[in-house]
Amino acid sequence: MAEKRPLNIGMVGYGFMGRTHSNAFGKVNQFFDLGYQPVLKAICGRDNDKTHTFANNWGYQSFETDWRTLVARNDIDLIDIASPNDTHAEIAVAAAAAGKMVMCEKPLGRNAAEGTRMVAAVEAAKVPNMVWYNYRRVPAVTLAKQLIDEARLGKIYHYRAKFLQDWTISKDLPQGGAGLWRLDVGVAGSGVTGDLLAHCIDTAMWLNGGIDKVSAITETFVTERMHTITGKVEPVGIDDASLFLARFSNGSLATFEATRHARGHKALYTFEINGEHGSIFWDLHDLHRLQYFDHRDEGKLRGWRSLHISDGDHPYMKHWWVPGLQIGYEHTFIHQVADFLGGLSSGTPAAPTFREALATDQVTDAVLRSARSGQWERPVAGQA
Amino acid sequence: MAEKRPLNIGMVGYGFMGRTHSNAFGKVNQFFDLGYQPVLKAICGRDNDKTHTFANNWGYQSFETDWRTLVARNDIDLIDIASPNDTHAEIAVAAAAAGKMVMCEKPLGRNAAEGTRMVAAVEAAKVPNMVWYNYRRVPAVTLAKQLIDEARLGKIYHYRAKFLQDWTISKDLPQGGAGLWRLDVGVAGSGVTGDLLAHCIDTAMWLNGGIDKVSAITETFVTERMHTITGKVEPVGIDDASLFLARFSNGSLATFEATRHARGHKALYTFEINGEHGSIFWDLHDLHRLQYFDHRDEGKLRGWRSLHISDGDHPYMKHWWVPGLQIGYEHTFIHQVADFLGGLSSGTPAAPTFREALATDQVTDAVLRSARSGQWERPVAGQA
Amino acid sequence: MAEKRPLNIGMVGYGFMGRTHSNAFGKVNQFFDLGYQPVLKAICGRDNDKTHTFANNWGYQSFETDWRTLVARNDIDLIDIASPNDTHAEIAVAAAAAGKMVMCEKPLGRNAAEGTRMVAAVEAAKVPNMVWYNYRRVPAVTLAKQLIDEARLGKIYHYRAKFLQDWTISKDLPQGGAGLWRLDVGVAGSGVTGDLLAHCIDTAMWLNGGIDKVSAITETFVTERMHTITGKVEPVGIDDASLFLARFSNGSLATFEATRHARGHKALYTFEINGEHGSIFWDLHDLHRLQYFDHRDEGKLRGWRSLHISDGDHPYMKHWWVPGLQIGYEHTFIHQVADFLGGLSSGTPAAPTFREALATDQVTDAVLRSARSGQWERPVAGQA
Amino acid sequence: MAEKRPLNIGMVGYGFMGRTHSNAFGKVNQFFDLGYQPVLKAICGRDNDKTHTFANNWGYQSFETDWRTLVARNDIDLIDIASPNDTHAEIAVAAAAAGKMVMCEKPLGRNAAEGTRMVAAVEAAKVPNMVWYNYRRVPAVTLAKQLIDEARLGKIYHYRAKFLQDWTISKDLPQGGAGLWRLDVGVAGSGVTGDLLAHCIDTAMWLNGGIDKVSAITETFVTERMHTITGKVEPVGIDDASLFLARFSNGSLATFEATRHARGHKALYTFEINGEHGSIFWDLHDLHRLQYFDHRDEGKLRGWRSLHISDGDHPYMKHWWVPGLQIGYEHTFIHQVADFLGGLSSGTPAAPTFREALATDQVTDAVLRSARSGQWERPVAGQA
Repeated sequence: MAEKRPLNIGMVGYGFMGRTHSNAFGKVNQFFDLGYQPVLKAICGRDNDKTHTFANNWGYQSFETDWRTLVARNDIDLIDIASPNDTHAEIAVAAAAAGKMVMCEKPLGRNAAEGTRMVAAVEAAKVPNMVWYNYRRVPAVTLAKQLIDEARLGKIYHYRAKFLQDWTISKDLPQGGAGLWRLDVGVAGSGVTGDLLAHCIDTAMWLNGGIDKVSAITETFVTERMHTITGKVEPVGIDDASLFLARFSNGSLATFEATRHARGHKALYTFEINGEHGSIFWDLHDLHRLQYFDHRDEGKLRGWRSLHISDGDHPYMKHWWVPGLQIGYEHTFIHQVADFLGGLSSGTPAAPTFREALATDQVTDAVLRSARSGQWERPVAGQA
Repeated sequence: MAEKRPLNIGMVGYGFMGRTHSNAFGKVNQFFDLGYQPVLKAICGRDNDKTHTFANNWGYQSFETDWRTLVARNDIDLIDIASPNDTHAEIAVAAAAAGKMVMCEKPLGRNAAEGTRMVAAVEAAKVPNMVWYNYRRVPAVTLAKQLIDEARLGKIYHYRAKFLQDWTISKDLPQGGAGLWRLDVGVAGSGVTGDLLAHCIDTAMWLNGGIDKVSAITETFVTERMHTITGKVEPVGIDDASLFLARFSNGSLATFEATRHARGHKALYTFEINGEHGSIFWDLHDLHRLQYFDHRDEGKLRGWRSLHISDGDHPYMKHWWVPGLQIGYEHTFIHQVADFLGGLSSGTPAAPTFREALATDQVTDAVLRSARSGQWERPVAGQA
Repeated sequence: MAEKRPLNIGMVGYGFMGRTHSNAFGKVNQFFDLGYQPVLKAICGRDNDKTHTFANNWGYQSFETDWRTLVARNDIDLIDIASPNDTHAEIAVAAAAAGKMVMCEKPLGRNAAEGTRMVAAVEAAKVPNMVWYNYRRVPAVTLAKQLIDEARLGKIYHYRAKFLQDWTISKDLPQGGAGLWRLDVGVAGSGVTGDLLAHCIDTAMWLNGGIDKVSAITETFVTERMHTITGKVEPVGIDDASLFLARFSNGSLATFEATRHARGHKALYTFEINGEHGSIFWDLHDLHRLQYFDHRDEGKLRGWRSLHISDGDHPYMKHWWVPGLQIGYEHTFIHQVADFLGGLSSGTPAAPTFREALATDQVTDAVLRSARSGQWERPVAGQA
Repeated sequence: MAEKRPLNIGMVGYGFMGRTHSNAFGKVNQFFDLGYQPVLKAICGRDNDKTHTFANNWGYQSFETDWRTLVARNDIDLIDIASPNDTHAEIAVAAAAAGKMVMCEKPLGRNAAEGTRMVAAVEAAKVPNMVWYNYRRVPAVTLAKQLIDEARLGKIYHYRAKFLQDWTISKDLPQGGAGLWRLDVGVAGSGVTGDLLAHCIDTAMWLNGGIDKVSAITETFVTERMHTITGKVEPVGIDDASLFLARFSNGSLATFEATRHARGHKALYTFEINGEHGSIFWDLHDLHRLQYFDHRDEGKLRGWRSLHISDGDHPYMKHWWVPGLQIGYEHTFIHQVADFLGGLSSGTPAAPTFREALATDQVTDAVLRSARSGQWERPVAGQA
């Protein structure tokens, strides 16, 4: 086991993502042999008591209630932003200016304009940076990437992705406040486009390259909801559903869809990619499986293979248990931290960097623009 | 068992659809107790020997090699058009003019202009007419229709359908001639739009009502192919893939996709519909199953139900075997004949009539128009 | 298409199996090019009106109400026995003595003693004979046989089969009479052992060779039922469930189970076979699929392949539709007739012959004997 | 959050189970709000360097190389035995005698005689005790138990379980030493019977009550293997496969099977239970799903429901992420620790205690005895 260098973490946000990130920093070195050891130095949240409790529960050595104080501390090496979308840009820019490494929960900004400023900040400061598009590190998804990089699919014809949920169908669900800021457009920036489609787009461009143009339609099925902060029924500014057609730069065609009104689906993120020689399908509800079709198999024995991604020769899996025993959602964050720490040692930044993640903001901007214009739109660098 | 009245069939076409229709006419009365008994009076095809052989094999009493002769025969009650798309309009119009009942393999015409003429002809002649959108009579699909009619899904939010094949990926596959006329745009009218999307659209409008507007993209991956009739490499005029977004009149949003370049899929027609209270999924590769989700089930026991559609209380199934024993593709045609014959007795036309099927031609026209214009397009009555 | 020689069929029984067999004889030549053409000469049943109606419906040229008359007719070439189990031996022996070819619905006899007499009769008369173990002709099952014959699985370690139903759980279901003779031990001979396990055993020995010894347990969950013929509540003599362990002659170990008390299963016949290099799984509820695992696939891409058995290079499938379009239960009977007729032309008897099917009676006898004795028992030639 | 009382853990064994247990003790209080906080006081292993490394990696405050020293330490409250089977009895008896709480990895002893001594020891010492049959705490399995306790299935007719692996098929795999002690009968006690069937039996008796009698067959497919400790080819004493029939005290019938020679399966533990009103199926390869059939559903809509066990109202799941996001294998150990610690606070021992787990040793003894005798055997209290 290598001698480990401490890496002092300052985390912003104790919500759902604060938990997944904290868990990842805490567990990574028990399963991966790395040159760096994250130290949970401080957690920052707005509510003093809740932040204190969170700090105790997860073993943070201290806590703050103002992120500016956290960013100013000399004993912090890395600022991890796990707070709502409207805080990403400001904190990231300040953290980079203070010379900290920066991690940011996805999406990068509420739009590409914010994202562009964030990229500029970390690149000017020359600090390591990464966005938590955690689904790249589902072992099955990483294996899909390997298979594509090995050219097993041949020329790609089709890509299709969807992310289906059903948790906001009720009109009685309010917007705003703790777990509900995703329904408040001021905080979230957009609805399912930035929340769910962003994941689909990040994976898609990683696997299949850039997106050339999109034609989109969005819908807000519930047009007003009680706001937990104002206490009043307020218009809903987010999109409940967002669908788009796309053409990739490699000529392949795609459908993308995200919605929170698909009854029966909790977090059904699926993608499929069809190439000349083979195809791949994956879904988040059974994330440890990859469906793979190889047309070069003997004719009468061709069929979709259901791969149970739990073997030692599958990505990341030699670090876990034994074949047949699966890991879950939280492990994707551990893998991402492992890659980040490995990248610090090797000098190769772990993907996606802020710059790489900005491309997704540019596509989501184009999607929203197309939904408004009724035209095909192209992702544009640095534009909202 | 009722006394049966003979119904003399004149079939045009001895290809794939000639077989499915002939089989249906031959078997229907062994499994359904109907007032009419189809009599296989004559089969018509262009090749004398092949038509003769087909007649012998399927028990046709006679055969013709010119459809005009067939249409002119006094001993024929019903003309069934199972020949390529470019023949539909001319034969149907002539048959109606001769006072025959007319059945036509889908799509109705190569475009809505042809379809409009066909509707006018059968309605002027007041003859019973029907288009073979056979997938409506898959028992699982018919059950889906029942559930929707019973309002079990509540308000509909989403519809998604796709029809994926992979049989034309090879550049060495020629166009034209016997089984390959679907690749020749002059004969087929379009590619997957009229061949595969037409099925998806027919089912969708049956289940979910009219389509308001579409935004489409199409692609011809293989741009030239040897033509078996000219013997020369010729440009390919059909679409290999066709994708569109849609908004239904009821406000729900949809993705539709058809392609013959989805490696690993032979005839994967699937649809899903998501409503406020429940959802339904079906696919053709396991056509005897229906996936059903009911949100009103007790919370901790909610899950997609995999219904094995083989019970006596499932549509059409009391006519077949015993629970657990499945039927297949060909039975959908038998069911359609049974409904047509039942409709003759009851006076209620079996759906879809020519008029009902014309709506699908209007949508496929709009899809192709949108793919050319890059704009959202609306289906228009009577326009190509 | 070959010139066809007529083969005059005399069928006994118009119940469920009378329908499946009649359908098979009627359709086989429309899909297979064979040297013989079955002619539906006569149907025989005990009820005059029902037999007459059945004859009309299925196109039989005549009907009889006494099987002895049928057997005595000179215009009959083949007697097909589709009547209840207690009639098999007597009719088969008489038919063979009259020089008729004989087909018999499974199981051969109610026990091996009856079966032995039947074998003796057809072998003495030297008449073609066959037992309707139709599941051998499910294309997926036939493909399994091919793969095993090609030694793809290597040495076999395990076999497991089950046949699960739930239709007799209700205590209110009576025994005896039309569709219920399977609950009357005098007619059926046994319960699920002869009805369901017989199928499992036939397939198993075809795929994996002889069975060396068995240890069994049976149960009658409902011990008395109203009898529709006596009109009285009578003891139930059949087994509702029958389970056994087995060792095959090749050293592999097996579990077998059949029951009519497995809630949620209609006709879930499944088998799995595990060998050194690969494994196969099949189930009747999705009969057009075969699950196949090949350990020689590349390590990280090993997975169970879900084969959709609908391609032209799959057994029997070139005779049907196009890839992706499935056939169903009734087709297995058509395939068996096709093989029988082909066998008449080629001189190679279609399996299983009476002699081959007798082996199954010997195993079911051993199963019932073991359930009584509490000991391991070996199948014994010619013994009840 | 409750004030937490420390509980000092002394762990024996740093192998696979040492990792799963250490992980569970370390994480439990981050996700469950409990009255006790495990403190990783000491780890004990035979190899000084490996033990030291393990201690550092998992945060143990100290380490030992002799379990007697560990048991003698005053600062240890609980001894957790995660070392090979042949050490369980001796360590457990000594730990109980020293007044420590005792946890033991399954199976309790190598046989019921050892297990009986262990039960006597912890009961004499009146110390809390528990055996790690972790699969009871898969949320889907716990839900199955709830459904059965709520009498949803009605009278039970059938139970079937299997545990299929394929990792020892190669004759080149040696026995003995680190990860291979499971192949050495002296260390393991038996092969798959104690390793895999023990899990199946524990779950089965928890869900379905006591087992009355068994009829078994076992097989050693590879009869000699290189021994890594002696360096010589030695006879193999374990069973590679073990199958048995059973009758439960409630009258239901069962098949059980475990093997390491089922090609294509890594750790496919499955069980199914069929009752009068419903059925349940679960498998370890997709452990976050439960298949549930309810016959009281409306007839035409009855089907197996695929429950994705990731909602807040599913057992244990409110402690984890959000609906749709699954947990994995390791979490079952965390749940078991949570229940043990909760039991310390409430005074209700967490199951299975040593006494409860002894019942499984008695059944595995009966299985091995039946395989030798060829007779049905009954589990006997306190006998090898």
